[in-house]
Amino acid sequence: MAIMTTTSSHTFLPVLERIAEEIGHTPGRGRPADYIPALAARDPRSFGMAVAELDGTVYGVGEWREPFSTQSITKVFTLALDLAREGDELWEHVGREPSGNPFNSLVQLEYENGIPRNPFINAGALVVTDRLQTRTEDAAGQLLDFLRAESGNPALDFDHEVAASETAFGDRNAALAHFMASYGNIDNDVTVLLDQYFRQCSVAASCADLALATGFLARHGIRADGTRLLTRSQAKQVNAVMLTCGTYDAAGDFAYRVGLPGKSGVGGGIIAVVPGRCTLCVWSPGLDERGNSVAGVAALDRFTTLTGLSVF
Amino acid sequence: MAIMTTTSSHTFLPVLERIAEEIGHTPGRGRPADYIPALAARDPRSFGMAVAELDGTVYGVGEWREPFSTQSITKVFTLALDLAREGDELWEHVGREPSGNPFNSLVQLEYENGIPRNPFINAGALVVTDRLQTRTEDAAGQLLDFLRAESGNPALDFDHEVAASETAFGDRNAALAHFMASYGNIDNDVTVLLDQYFRQCSVAASCADLALATGFLARHGIRADGTRLLTRSQAKQVNAVMLTCGTYDAAGDFAYRVGLPGKSGVGGGIIAVVPGRCTLCVWSPGLDERGNSVAGVAALDRFTTLTGLSVF
Amino acid sequence: MAIMTTTSSHTFLPVLERIAEEIGHTPGRGRPADYIPALAARDPRSFGMAVAELDGTVYGVGEWREPFSTQSITKVFTLALDLAREGDELWEHVGREPSGNPFNSLVQLEYENGIPRNPFINAGALVVTDRLQTRTEDAAGQLLDFLRAESGNPALDFDHEVAASETAFGDRNAALAHFMASYGNIDNDVTVLLDQYFRQCSVAASCADLALATGFLARHGIRADGTRLLTRSQAKQVNAVMLTCGTYDAAGDFAYRVGLPGKSGVGGGIIAVVPGRCTLCVWSPGLDERGNSVAGVAALDRFTTLTGLSVF
Amino acid sequence: MAIMTTTSSHTFLPVLERIAEEIGHTPGRGRPADYIPALAARDPRSFGMAVAELDGTVYGVGEWREPFSTQSITKVFTLALDLAREGDELWEHVGREPSGNPFNSLVQLEYENGIPRNPFINAGALVVTDRLQTRTEDAAGQLLDFLRAESGNPALDFDHEVAASETAFGDRNAALAHFMASYGNIDNDVTVLLDQYFRQCSVAASCADLALATGFLARHGIRADGTRLLTRSQAKQVNAVMLTCGTYDAAGDFAYRVGLPGKSGVGGGIIAVVPGRCTLCVWSPGLDERGNSVAGVAALDRFTTLTGLSVF
Repeated sequence: MAIMTTTSSHTFLPVLERIAEEIGHTPGRGRPADYIPALAARDPRSFGMAVAELDGTVYGVGEWREPFSTQSITKVFTLALDLAREGDELWEHVGREPSGNPFNSLVQLEYENGIPRNPFINAGALVVTDRLQTRTEDAAGQLLDFLRAESGNPALDFDHEVAASETAFGDRNAALAHFMASYGNIDNDVTVLLDQYFRQCSVAASCADLALATGFLARHGIRADGTRLLTRSQAKQVNAVMLTCGTYDAAGDFAYRVGLPGKSGVGGGIIAVVPGRCTLCVWSPGLDERGNSVAGVAALDRFTTLTGLSVF
Repeated sequence: MAIMTTTSSHTFLPVLERIAEEIGHTPGRGRPADYIPALAARDPRSFGMAVAELDGTVYGVGEWREPFSTQSITKVFTLALDLAREGDELWEHVGREPSGNPFNSLVQLEYENGIPRNPFINAGALVVTDRLQTRTEDAAGQLLDFLRAESGNPALDFDHEVAASETAFGDRNAALAHFMASYGNIDNDVTVLLDQYFRQCSVAASCADLALATGFLARHGIRADGTRLLTRSQAKQVNAVMLTCGTYDAAGDFAYRVGLPGKSGVGGGIIAVVPGRCTLCVWSPGLDERGNSVAGVAALDRFTTLTGLSVF
Repeated sequence: MAIMTTTSSHTFLPVLERIAEEIGHTPGRGRPADYIPALAARDPRSFGMAVAELDGTVYGVGEWREPFSTQSITKVFTLALDLAREGDELWEHVGREPSGNPFNSLVQLEYENGIPRNPFINAGALVVTDRLQTRTEDAAGQLLDFLRAESGNPALDFDHEVAASETAFGDRNAALAHFMASYGNIDNDVTVLLDQYFRQCSVAASCADLALATGFLARHGIRADGTRLLTRSQAKQVNAVMLTCGTYDAAGDFAYRVGLPGKSGVGGGIIAVVPGRCTLCVWSPGLDERGNSVAGVAALDRFTTLTGLSVF
Repeated sequence: MAIMTTTSSHTFLPVLERIAEEIGHTPGRGRPADYIPALAARDPRSFGMAVAELDGTVYGVGEWREPFSTQSITKVFTLALDLAREGDELWEHVGREPSGNPFNSLVQLEYENGIPRNPFINAGALVVTDRLQTRTEDAAGQLLDFLRAESGNPALDFDHEVAASETAFGDRNAALAHFMASYGNIDNDVTVLLDQYFRQCSVAASCADLALATGFLARHGIRADGTRLLTRSQAKQVNAVMLTCGTYDAAGDFAYRVGLPGKSGVGGGIIAVVPGRCTLCVWSPGLDERGNSVAGVAALDRFTTLTGLSVF
């Protein structure tokens, strides 16, 4: 397995290499998401993992430079971009409690009058996107600009085929958006909102890109260029929401096994934060029944076990 | 406000003093639980806070030596005692995901065939007690022995008036127990189980007692006498479950504000863990609408803000 | 109160007159639906009631010739029109059980995988409209033709202002339609379907028109012109669904008080069937908290009490 | 198939004979309830059907004189006995709407604060029994006296083996009772209540017995001895509740197919009422997945089709 590195300080590289080897010997990778063709076509044996240190050093193992579909991972960045602009008023429109229900459920939304439980279930991400759209008139464009700047990769882009597929199979998200609109919790036209939302989900990026882009959460709110995106308190808030709500209906299990703030996507990627120390991104397309990458969770579990870097 | 100390190293004492002073100036303390007389009678202006360092040093402010009703805080210890005996098999009978519903809800239990979501909702604690009872024939006695040993306070005891009140108003817990029994998830006679359960909840202890008794979770599983109760991995698991599920339906909010594994009780107490560093217990009887101590959450929020000791 | 009649045999006219007088003396009429302006503007003191005998004789009291917004009453006719074409296959796409939930709830729909409980909750009516649309390419037009033919009133028409208002406030129905589409239970484009659906709901008709149009259900499936729309068994089925599901979450109460198959609309109208004997329509815009006309239910209650014509 | 008759006017006997012959040729009878041994042991090929005319004439086909376990059928009589004593106040403690959920569900009970939806789900029957117990101090004894008097069969009795089995497997009902007690909707001690409830369910009676005992509902409230149990309006109410709620989660389907007020039990019996005309009881132990007798529903369906006696 080829190892590429970009700078000289690679504290965790031996750990990554050991993990990659172990994962390579592990059968059973789950199945890629199959609701859109572009995801279903990925090879479940693919695996990559990257670490970004606080100073922007990034290195990895396996296919850590291979772009994949970020999907729900972008919900973290959209949340941060809106929170930076709007502050605590956001929390009147979306909660920060675990949902206890599948990520696209309408049940809880109905019982709680159109206020989604947290920003990482689809309903909550739609609300966050809607509010960022109101404030910027181009939520997806803002996201893309941010990811490019933080990763230092100007080639990052939307995958229009993926976005088109999402739209074609977007009835569930359309239902969520109209439902919240019926409670007055969506400001923009639903068609416009869904277009913004599906484009965000479609961004293709690599483990290297995403580990770097997540760096501001390990640096307590500071961007790659040294400017502040979030206050220290806000960065702590985003990490807390990631830990309690970041992996769909398996957040408790993830906290229990991995013990780090993390966010997964159905493209098979997972980002994770060691506050004050580093960020990680792992990718393998095969998912468990809850929508999280099988090899990805296993790799992060090994990482915190081997390094003792769990927050617990 | 009188300060009592027991040993010489009191790193966080100035912080506690500052917090106590701030809390003293803050109006609005919520209302004590009113479903049983012994809780309703407590003065919502009461406040105490203690820190226990890893070596057993304990100190505090306010009424940190005053016994109060531990209530759901004991769920942490019962969980640890059963996990130490049973290991991972326990997790086939109780989940470790946040519930997204009030702590005594039957709804989720029905949808998930009698398997409670986590050990800290009442249904889950009943299952843990049932399993500890099967293994020890005296779950409540085991709990009391453990608390006495860890706190070094042999005077700790059940409050029989509280236990009797709980039993008299225990229809909801009886419903939960019978309901799970109908799914085959309770082994003991329901009457026996409820007696054990209500006695556990009735234990009276002070902030000092509870901060000390929680120490094994900061020491990665090691008891006060240096013997091991839990493996390092199990201690991490209990901390993870506390962070994601420890404060009823406000776990996300608690993680967001405090950022530490914690467990609250309707007696107004909250324990919290700074892994590898120290444990805390705060007490003030006035509760918010979710059942957590108003001044207790505020004090812990200030503690992590002032010390930077949040896990995030 | 002026009485108009159209033919000579008016068996129930004295009963209607007595009811109208009693209703006239009764204060408390509920409140008109207020979610669209055209409904909110109606006077809750308005009242009309008509009886149509099997031979097409129709007579009434009060404002029985005044057109009002039919709303959900049209669900009965759309159901009959599709059932006549499709037969029992329809019941694979919509159930015929009471819902036990408010008429526009998404909860049950989610637990039952996109199959609505019955044709009279909004989700079920959307499915029926979708299927009639697939078979006729103009579901709303078919409905209008049918109502004109049965009532003998060629002036019956859609109320375009009402349809436009429904569309403007149609997020909840859009959510329902997209949600069912995500389960594969909607064939047509959601925008097309909603247009058809809202036009149906907008039809304006009088008590006389609707009592006549309902006649086929009292004649065991035979239309006004003597041709058969439904088999005897199908007519019985529609009546059974009306009795168990026709008045939102108050079907049990309606069966208990009135004891006739009936269907209400938020415009304040209610149709009812005495199988083999006659049909009724009553209208008064003030609604109770479950969406049924207060004076309408009271009038039908009195009718079955005075005539002994309840099915029980 | 032997036919026994007791008096001279047997209007529907030829219809019963035809139905018995058809049923005899029909394979597929479902499976007996298996949660207690006494029910599981019954032969699913057993079949009996009886008609009782208004004057007390009773006749039948098949095993119409064979006693079977009445189970939930007794809920009708308990309801009538309490309603006769308590009147409309009962309806403040139990609703009369279909449940839309399985008969022993706790979900709806929780959302509606401990008020069961109707008297025929288990929770509702527990409330009715509790109230009758408060008024008579022997609810089960009152029921037995009533059934003996109406059927003219002094040998009718509880089946103590069945009652003991129900108690042994009674956790779900204990959960329901405690849960409602927690809302203040149960007056008696739960242990006493459950004993009364399970004894009621255990009564063994034949089709002949039950058809006769149901007669007061066809006679608009008049008992076999000519005295009045219920007002005409109350009898209508009970029939309405039977039609909308009498067959668990299949009430809509039963109304649609049979079109008569009816009540089933998991012993395989079903009673039905043709108001003003006659009563029926059919029995065959094999159940469908909703808990209703397969041959029983089929026989009643044929009866209303052949006689045209559906209420619709």
